[in-house]
Amino acid sequence: RINQQRLWDTLMEMGQIGGTEKGGCNRLAGTDLDKQARDLFVSWCEAAGCDITVDRIGNIFARRPGLNNDLPSVATGSHLDTQPTGGKFDGVFGVLAGVEVLRTLHENNIQTPTPMEFTVWTNEEGSRFQPAMQGSGVYVGRFDLEEELNKTDVDGIRLGDELERIGYLGDAEPRSRNFGAFFETHIEQGPILEDAEKSIGVVRLGQGIRWYNIDIQGRESHSGTTPMYLRKDAMVAASLVIAELEKMAHRHENGLATTGFMQVYPNSRNTIPGHIRFSADLRNPNPDVLTRMHEELLAFCKQLSVDRGLEIKVDPFWYFAPVEFNASDDVKAATEKLGYSHMDIYAGAGHDACYMADLVPSGMIFTPCKDGISHNEVEYSTPEQCAAGANVLLHTMLEASER
Amino acid sequence: RINQQRLWDTLMEMGQIGGTEKGGCNRLAGTDLDKQARDLFVSWCEAAGCDITVDRIGNIFARRPGLNNDLPSVATGSHLDTQPTGGKFDGVFGVLAGVEVLRTLHENNIQTPTPMEFTVWTNEEGSRFQPAMQGSGVYVGRFDLEEELNKTDVDGIRLGDELERIGYLGDAEPRSRNFGAFFETHIEQGPILEDAEKSIGVVRLGQGIRWYNIDIQGRESHSGTTPMYLRKDAMVAASLVIAELEKMAHRHENGLATTGFMQVYPNSRNTIPGHIRFSADLRNPNPDVLTRMHEELLAFCKQLSVDRGLEIKVDPFWYFAPVEFNASDDVKAATEKLGYSHMDIYAGAGHDACYMADLVPSGMIFTPCKDGISHNEVEYSTPEQCAAGANVLLHTMLEASER
Ligand SMILES: NC(=O)NCCC(=O)O
Ligand SMILES: NC(=O)NCCC(=O)O
Repeated sequence: RINQQRLWDTLMEMGQIGGTEKGGCNRLAGTDLDKQARDLFVSWCEAAGCDITVDRIGNIFARRPGLNNDLPSVATGSHLDTQPTGGKFDGVFGVLAGVEVLRTLHENNIQTPTPMEFTVWTNEEGSRFQPAMQGSGVYVGRFDLEEELNKTDVDGIRLGDELERIGYLGDAEPRSRNFGAFFETHIEQGPILEDAEKSIGVVRLGQGIRWYNIDIQGRESHSGTTPMYLRKDAMVAASLVIAELEKMAHRHENGLATTGFMQVYPNSRNTIPGHIRFSADLRNPNPDVLTRMHEELLAFCKQLSVDRGLEIKVDPFWYFAPVEFNASDDVKAATEKLGYSHMDIYAGAGHDACYMADLVPSGMIFTPCKDGISHNEVEYSTPEQCAAGANVLLHTMLEASER
Repeated sequence: RINQQRLWDTLMEMGQIGGTEKGGCNRLAGTDLDKQARDLFVSWCEAAGCDITVDRIGNIFARRPGLNNDLPSVATGSHLDTQPTGGKFDGVFGVLAGVEVLRTLHENNIQTPTPMEFTVWTNEEGSRFQPAMQGSGVYVGRFDLEEELNKTDVDGIRLGDELERIGYLGDAEPRSRNFGAFFETHIEQGPILEDAEKSIGVVRLGQGIRWYNIDIQGRESHSGTTPMYLRKDAMVAASLVIAELEKMAHRHENGLATTGFMQVYPNSRNTIPGHIRFSADLRNPNPDVLTRMHEELLAFCKQLSVDRGLEIKVDPFWYFAPVEFNASDDVKAATEKLGYSHMDIYAGAGHDACYMADLVPSGMIFTPCKDGISHNEVEYSTPEQCAAGANVLLHTMLEASER
């Protein structure tokens, strides 16, 4: 069994880096705070006998040798970056559950048949740079390395430059680790486990995600002198798309649709906006439904552009197909062995393990979070809930190493 | 008659300061570019024999002595600040028509019975700092000086500090000029004169304006894990308000409604926005209709906040009542004397002359602008159209000085 208090203490210590007044965390990918968090992780892993490798997209691999180091390692991990209004658990808990497993093995001098690896993936959140799960996506070959290093934030700063600046632009090639299996612990981020009073969610599926940049090009003109019939108002058009996105989500079973990001040009009160860029995020566990939502969005925007004489460009720059986890039974077996209540569940969010499932048998362990609230500074899990997840991770990894 | 080519050359020279690729101008109030434009104006006025006074809100007064300097002066002017996507004419034309009048008097050694004053008003646009017509509003006593100096831009920079930094925080008290009348030349910014093929608009009224900050407080949460029924989505709520504003404008005769400004927190694609601040700009020439629009906006936001469990704060921070120009007949007389085609018109935009009308007989001279487009880099007027406006200004001022 892992050490519940120690796990909690590491969570609270890590949460100081970028800690906010409301008790959350604002630690965007590639920032100085991301560096501090990474440095702390590296120091903890080195102290527990690991050696460290960093790859060309900044993913960190801390390796604990096993009895036979030619065997593929059993790996775990998640991310240390957060949302601007993030909590102390999303991602971080998955990384630190790994560190707690590592320490438990280390202090008990447990020799595992295979090596074990403890990982941190770059920019999982997709908040500062897009898309999400960028580090794991590059690692498994879904994204092109150079293209992702060239991605810029809203201020035009390159991810590659930021990784270099904070000392995490490594030289290991993506895919060069010898993994045998991958497991990720994560808070659920939704209300289901809490409502069902279950300690552990055995994640069967990661739902599909589509991300869009929508650019509406209207025409700037004066708010006081331009009659309504002469307007090409990009703001009103964007509002109609956003209102429609909500309706679309309601129309489809399990449909979700969100606009979280918007930039307005010129953003002046008495100038009708001439250009608006905003995001759309569509999700569905059923790929066919997600395709229908996609088509409805395109059709709506096309019709709107005709009706209003505006140019609307919809760039569907990221499609994440629903993924089935093929090592879920390992998670379930460990959960049952430990006697935790559990249920099967699907992941609403994308996770690094979803991409790792491309390469190796993978599974995810969900734990409840308070009121189902995440991407919010009030995000919370209890020490007991976290400990249960880390215990399941420990035993899942040990079993996998034995095989 | 004024010198058309010289007027045009000064317009083009001034337009270089903050000139944009698309031929417009981006010269926000209180910036280094604003300073450059002000310095150029001051140098031109000094060269034509004026002395310069700057007041405590940064308004500039260039005074040309008359035959009797105890008499109140006849004044003109407008503003040199522009929108972020502004043109080379809005405001600037009114200032430089004044400079052209000054130069015409100067080179012909014309002695006027009263002094003449040529003015530049601070932050007329209301783009960087709110409200609009801030300098003239303080001058006439509509706004409190200290309160306006303490206003900040989106980065928290104080207007007072910016004026000091660029050397235009003067020490003259507002209201300390001895004005007898005020006339402002301005491009129409709308399509009416062009459509009617008239050279001059005799402005009878400035329509009413209401400006709002609307703050919607929802709850940040995850776009992929938060079911639709659990959301408190500030972005969707803002979109519904904006779509309703357009409908409201259509419901009322001559109604205009615009959202030009929006800030989204945390502005991350996979976080449901927890807080949105945006502007509303309502206009109507009829104060009763404007009041109804105001009440409808409040009622809509109240109902929406109940329906969606969100907090919506509507701050109606600026009300500009419709104003009648009581010296329009002077403008009309000069226009007819010069033989220009003309029509009566009302101003859709607010102007410094609207506030000056509080203190002294005031009038406005409108000239056509291409396609009625303003607050856009393509804003354009021909040299002939500008010259007509400046000629009317010259003769209106001369007549007023004679009386
Ligand atoms: N776990 C998590 O919040 N991932 C961010 C990627 C997503 O938007 O689902
Ligand atoms: N002339 C002009 O564009 N003024 C700005 C103030 C307004 O919004 O009407």
